[in-house]
Amino acid sequence: MSVQLNEHGELRHFLTTEGLDPQLLTRILDTAESFAGVIGKSIKTVPLLRGRTVVNLFFESSTRTRTTFELAAKRLSADVLNVAVDTTATKGESLLDMLRNLQAMQADMFVIRHDQSGAAEYFARHVDPGVAVLNAGDGWHAHPTQAMLDAYTIRQQKGAFEPLRVAIVGDIRHSRVARSQIHALNGLGVGEIRVIAPNTLLPADVDTLGVQVYNDLGAGLRDVDVVIALRLQRERMQGALLPGESEYFRHYGLTESRLRAAHPEAIVMHPGPINRGVEIDSELADGPRSVILDQVTNGIAIRMAIMTMVLGVQPETPREAT
Amino acid sequence: MSVQLNEHGELRHFLTTEGLDPQLLTRILDTAESFAGVIGKSIKTVPLLRGRTVVNLFFESSTRTRTTFELAAKRLSADVLNVAVDTTATKGESLLDMLRNLQAMQADMFVIRHDQSGAAEYFARHVDPGVAVLNAGDGWHAHPTQAMLDAYTIRQQKGAFEPLRVAIVGDIRHSRVARSQIHALNGLGVGEIRVIAPNTLLPADVDTLGVQVYNDLGAGLRDVDVVIALRLQRERMQGALLPGESEYFRHYGLTESRLRAAHPEAIVMHPGPINRGVEIDSELADGPRSVILDQVTNGIAIRMAIMTMVLGVQPETPREAT
Amino acid sequence: MSVQLNEHGELRHFLTTEGLDPQLLTRILDTAESFAGVIGKSIKTVPLLRGRTVVNLFFESSTRTRTTFELAAKRLSADVLNVAVDTTATKGESLLDMLRNLQAMQADMFVIRHDQSGAAEYFARHVDPGVAVLNAGDGWHAHPTQAMLDAYTIRQQKGAFEPLRVAIVGDIRHSRVARSQIHALNGLGVGEIRVIAPNTLLPADVDTLGVQVYNDLGAGLRDVDVVIALRLQRERMQGALLPGESEYFRHYGLTESRLRAAHPEAIVMHPGPINRGVEIDSELADGPRSVILDQVTNGIAIRMAIMTMVLGVQPETPREAT
Repeated sequence: MSVQLNEHGELRHFLTTEGLDPQLLTRILDTAESFAGVIGKSIKTVPLLRGRTVVNLFFESSTRTRTTFELAAKRLSADVLNVAVDTTATKGESLLDMLRNLQAMQADMFVIRHDQSGAAEYFARHVDPGVAVLNAGDGWHAHPTQAMLDAYTIRQQKGAFEPLRVAIVGDIRHSRVARSQIHALNGLGVGEIRVIAPNTLLPADVDTLGVQVYNDLGAGLRDVDVVIALRLQRERMQGALLPGESEYFRHYGLTESRLRAAHPEAIVMHPGPINRGVEIDSELADGPRSVILDQVTNGIAIRMAIMTMVLGVQPETPREAT
Repeated sequence: MSVQLNEHGELRHFLTTEGLDPQLLTRILDTAESFAGVIGKSIKTVPLLRGRTVVNLFFESSTRTRTTFELAAKRLSADVLNVAVDTTATKGESLLDMLRNLQAMQADMFVIRHDQSGAAEYFARHVDPGVAVLNAGDGWHAHPTQAMLDAYTIRQQKGAFEPLRVAIVGDIRHSRVARSQIHALNGLGVGEIRVIAPNTLLPADVDTLGVQVYNDLGAGLRDVDVVIALRLQRERMQGALLPGESEYFRHYGLTESRLRAAHPEAIVMHPGPINRGVEIDSELADGPRSVILDQVTNGIAIRMAIMTMVLGVQPETPREAT
Repeated sequence: MSVQLNEHGELRHFLTTEGLDPQLLTRILDTAESFAGVIGKSIKTVPLLRGRTVVNLFFESSTRTRTTFELAAKRLSADVLNVAVDTTATKGESLLDMLRNLQAMQADMFVIRHDQSGAAEYFARHVDPGVAVLNAGDGWHAHPTQAMLDAYTIRQQKGAFEPLRVAIVGDIRHSRVARSQIHALNGLGVGEIRVIAPNTLLPADVDTLGVQVYNDLGAGLRDVDVVIALRLQRERMQGALLPGESEYFRHYGLTESRLRAAHPEAIVMHPGPINRGVEIDSELADGPRSVILDQVTNGIAIRMAIMTMVLGVQPETPREAT
């Protein structure tokens, strides 16, 4: 049984989109939708997690990701503790001691970001029964909340998943985002998922992922409904797999003119922050096809949804804070 | 039309005290006064901004200023996100992307501190209609909330502005505080504003500011009602404009005996943190003329006032949080 | 009269456990007990300090200790400001100015950690009448909240203090924790307190502390009911007082087999974070005798108790936040 589900098949933790069934994936999107209305209002908080404690435990610095989880928790009226961990100053063994200590302070949820694949699951296996772990990115493995906000944005723009062709462009190999997207979109029934990258930036297990592989951008973009550009993660690449940023842009950078091969109504997505002129042209990023900022907005609702679900709190009738 | 006002002449952002009319400046002071009572109580919070999100976006480190804005926002029951930005790690273009991203998280207000003049206005020009920008100090340009808390403190101590002589002593040239004070106090109708500094520490446009210039401290202090010492901003001075701290103190440092030239009831102000024995003698800073700590207290009420005004929230009948 | 008590003998500040009478020490434990039930619930907050401002003023970095105070304050619904002070960037004189400034912002409580003994008392002597100071560790002097949570844990496990033999093992000399424990446990009437350490790690005034001194671990542990291991504070030791960690473990490290000399029901405590294999063996730390994680949990309730007591807030009938 998956460590992230309880015996009733409900979310206990949120570690990966791999293996989640369509019903559960859809329930996450539906729950997020119920929060989306709240976020647009001037009063954005609901008291669903009042009195609960969420610990942001970041072993890898990321102001942006930390901020979205912090905001989601605060809009649920939870108390938030930010703990930045300097891994150079902490020995391996004491990580578990750190978790036990924070847990002994009666934290209800840990949001964990770590540069080691599997770190979030390791923590999930060791927390007490009532405590939930959310994976905010672990090594090259998974970034499941990012994948779910992407799925939410696609459904918001396109309605049904089944008829869609979705292309993911860029460094698939080192991208936890791409991996989580592929699992989520396959789970939700997307008709065809393509990955577009040079062979050096494809993962060794690409044949097992349920995707079509394209090396050529023009061919890969033909007739797609959704194009997802990945961020060029220079810090994650080992060795000289790429000939340089301008060379990358020339072959794999997204532009308005290249998008002409896609469906006329195709949308463009990016997990951010964007490297303008590397993965994507500014004109395209800021143009009408781009839903990049919608993704950011939807990220709050998705994280609110997952936070309530893993704690078993019913968000169906969110009352406003008084 | 000024970017900081809407079409009804109401505050949309708060970027500078320059060009604000006396009615609006007075309304800020009056609104702050309505909050001052709240601050003195044991329960200091009002729910006026409950459910709103305030982002402290500090490109320049300042624990002190960040703290005052954070406190003001929390006393209005807003959620506060502190984002410290390392400008050495961020490229110019992506600043706007950062703003758009934070805005997409449905932030309601940005409090921005930046070492470049005009940064706050740049952000104000690019945010969405419902979002407000507060300038918490931009380069040498402006620090308008500091100027307003100074005006508040002067009114609290002296009543009317018209009969007053106010002297500002120190490095006028590199001081965003002095610039904002001069605009605010002129706008509020102060009878005479003097600046006292060596020519090397006067701005090139000093003739256009509506102030009397004195190089000599003794002459400048004669009969003044209010003396404002500026902090010696050593980090802002380019080149050797000053012969050293003790030399500065000998010529421009404020002491009890030098204050004898002023009005017997003259008060002494300083934006803090003070360099004792450089701009001001300890005996004077801690003595009965000093209202330096009143300034700090008033800074919370002023920031609460401006935060509610830019969001169009009526603070006339603040209810206590329940 | 002690600076930490008012004229009615009630807590005004919490600086040290030295000199506190048994009634007051017991009242702290009883008050904490009233909060312990709250902490175990899913809604963990009470509105007792709503609208109050707690400033965590940490001159010495400690994520762990800061976190416990932040959590305690948030569970009382206080607003919390975290201020990390870089002492290398601050001159001695301006510390008092910093305190006055934060106080002028109408803070209600300062939680101070500093590497100089006496720092908390210095601040307590200079704050305004309504403002409370809590010592979160000052140099080698005191860490009184740690001592009280230890006393709470002992009472929770053992009931009465009078019949107990308690042994404190390790670097007594450089331990503010040990010093505060000895004062608290003597005040609460513990039958016998032993310290176990090599002479080089005993304080010069050990004869005045009301403890039995043992150099030999086996002899010191005989028939004790409670064993408290201290953390090896390598950063606090000047010079080569210790021959190395493995040598230390061989002589003073706690293990299951060495604990056989103690009472069969003896418990093992540690203020954390533990150095496994240095002060304590993993088997023992994770075994049934260990109450190390209970100590962490109890630390929240103890800090909630002290925070309400120094502000004169009655926690007898804590209502849940609504």
